[in-house]
Amino acid sequence: MSFETLDALRALLAQMPGPDTDALEAAAARNGQLTKPPGALGRLEDLAIWYAGWRGDARPAINAPQVIVFAGNHGVAARGVSAFPPEVTEQMVANFEHGGAAINQLAATFGARMDVVALDLETPTADFTAGPAMSEAETVAALRAGWDAVDAGADLLVVGEMGIGNTTSAAAIAARLFGGNGAAWTGRGTGVEGAALALKTQVVDDALALHRSAGDGLDVLMRLGGRELAGMAGAMARARSLRIPVIMDGFICTAAAACLAHTVLGALDHVVAGHESGEGAHPRMLTALGKAPLLSLGLRLGEGSGAALAIGVLKGAVACHSGMATFGEAGVSDA
Amino acid sequence: MSFETLDALRALLAQMPGPDTDALEAAAARNGQLTKPPGALGRLEDLAIWYAGWRGDARPAINAPQVIVFAGNHGVAARGVSAFPPEVTEQMVANFEHGGAAINQLAATFGARMDVVALDLETPTADFTAGPAMSEAETVAALRAGWDAVDAGADLLVVGEMGIGNTTSAAAIAARLFGGNGAAWTGRGTGVEGAALALKTQVVDDALALHRSAGDGLDVLMRLGGRELAGMAGAMARARSLRIPVIMDGFICTAAAACLAHTVLGALDHVVAGHESGEGAHPRMLTALGKAPLLSLGLRLGEGSGAALAIGVLKGAVACHSGMATFGEAGVSDA
Repeated sequence: MSFETLDALRALLAQMPGPDTDALEAAAARNGQLTKPPGALGRLEDLAIWYAGWRGDARPAINAPQVIVFAGNHGVAARGVSAFPPEVTEQMVANFEHGGAAINQLAATFGARMDVVALDLETPTADFTAGPAMSEAETVAALRAGWDAVDAGADLLVVGEMGIGNTTSAAAIAARLFGGNGAAWTGRGTGVEGAALALKTQVVDDALALHRSAGDGLDVLMRLGGRELAGMAGAMARARSLRIPVIMDGFICTAAAACLAHTVLGALDHVVAGHESGEGAHPRMLTALGKAPLLSLGLRLGEGSGAALAIGVLKGAVACHSGMATFGEAGVSDA
Repeated sequence: MSFETLDALRALLAQMPGPDTDALEAAAARNGQLTKPPGALGRLEDLAIWYAGWRGDARPAINAPQVIVFAGNHGVAARGVSAFPPEVTEQMVANFEHGGAAINQLAATFGARMDVVALDLETPTADFTAGPAMSEAETVAALRAGWDAVDAGADLLVVGEMGIGNTTSAAAIAARLFGGNGAAWTGRGTGVEGAALALKTQVVDDALALHRSAGDGLDVLMRLGGRELAGMAGAMARARSLRIPVIMDGFICTAAAACLAHTVLGALDHVVAGHESGEGAHPRMLTALGKAPLLSLGLRLGEGSGAALAIGVLKGAVACHSGMATFGEAGVSDA
């Protein structure tokens, strides 16, 4: 199963599987018998039942999480929208490969396999204030790179990114999909402020003016996105086809996910928001998608770091659900 | 080092060690050189530096977390303040010992050793609406049981509890220490509502009327606490003497911790709030202590469950801090 065009991916997205309703029901019934007052594990209970539904197993385990970090370069970076020079994208890919980045430490802490997918770093996307960021063929290639990077044996997926300039891309996508101007969605990214932030905001407004006629989420991804955003979207779509639950990361990952949600309704039903980022407009992006974050610790690093941290929460939720004794098994008096 | 009286413990608390300022400074310097934009790991950065200071190691690791669950029975339970019968305390202790409770799963998920300390379950404390819950000797014995339960080789401590009736005790402690009446601090606990909640609130008001003349935090602990609360307080004090950082759990654990904070200023400097509980007044209790929670997922189970879940956050923070490459090591261009 794969795709050669954006229309072919649209058709695939329209026929993706839902959760297993039998497993959902059985998991909810099990939850009601565990040795705790009803509801006392709060969101952990909802998470475990949601996870059980997607895995089709009323008593699941998380043994094989996968973290994939996608990297891409952005033509718009030449307009001076980042506090860091564009060569940092490639330097950080080397850092990922040598195990020195934050995401390496977090993946190791939570027992996740980590893969790095660098997407044509030597060929930045086009400056989207002058035309579409990518051709359809380039967009499809990056989406497929994401699709193909998912391990079919994974039981949980985190996707992250590295790409100097990509908060500008994400802000433009959010403005196009959710409405509002550049100022509503543009933030400090790696640390721009003052005149540099004003310039970044203007760049987003320029992009919005040029791409007024953008269509659905995949069209917006092609026009305003980047290869690493398309890679993340492709991986999240592939996870859905395999019924692998996904933990979404921050501002850029959420923008990529929003492109799927604005292509086919319900495309993010298998996705939970790992955290609320410190990037200013991320909470509004989550609200627009109806996703409540698991963590809110002010992270604004990308790489999948906030989502990877939330692997621990999901592991804890599933461990409680599947490992706890019932009132009957433990001989504990019910209320 | 131990104590035979509450006054002896007061003297010990007054001379507890602080963090290692050299390690704090070295950790802050290291944090500034890691391959990420300044501040991009949000609270994880503060947590790692705080942890480094207490451990006296600018590049620490978390290898030996300990979870201790204390259990006690409350005379006030006879007044019908809980949705569960008092025998559940002992039944749950058996569940802990057989590995069937939520805290067992969470301790295992985050690689923590777990100990269970059942404190004279056959002898409930006195009903604190008729007199002090405990004698000084009983209070000291429970504090010492907590003190002695801490593994000197642990590098992180979580304390939790089980005790039917103990949200009533915690509400009375909070009202006495922070001000306000029973209604301000009494919540649903394991699930009381309506007339039962009104009765529970009245019980707290009765206790407040009787113990108007209570003194410092340790006196309040003796009058309104219980053995498992004293056990937790003793363990947190012992952790301070060993410079073992503590993650605080929810409503009852925080009430026990507040008894230390209201005995000696700064007694909780080595303590971070693991989560904001779903028990209604817990956020106000944290605010009164100046502690911002790491998680807010609606847990209201006790057992140390919310704090154990936060072990993952702290492990992630310390792993990033100690494992990441610096800009220089990775050859990444700085901003």
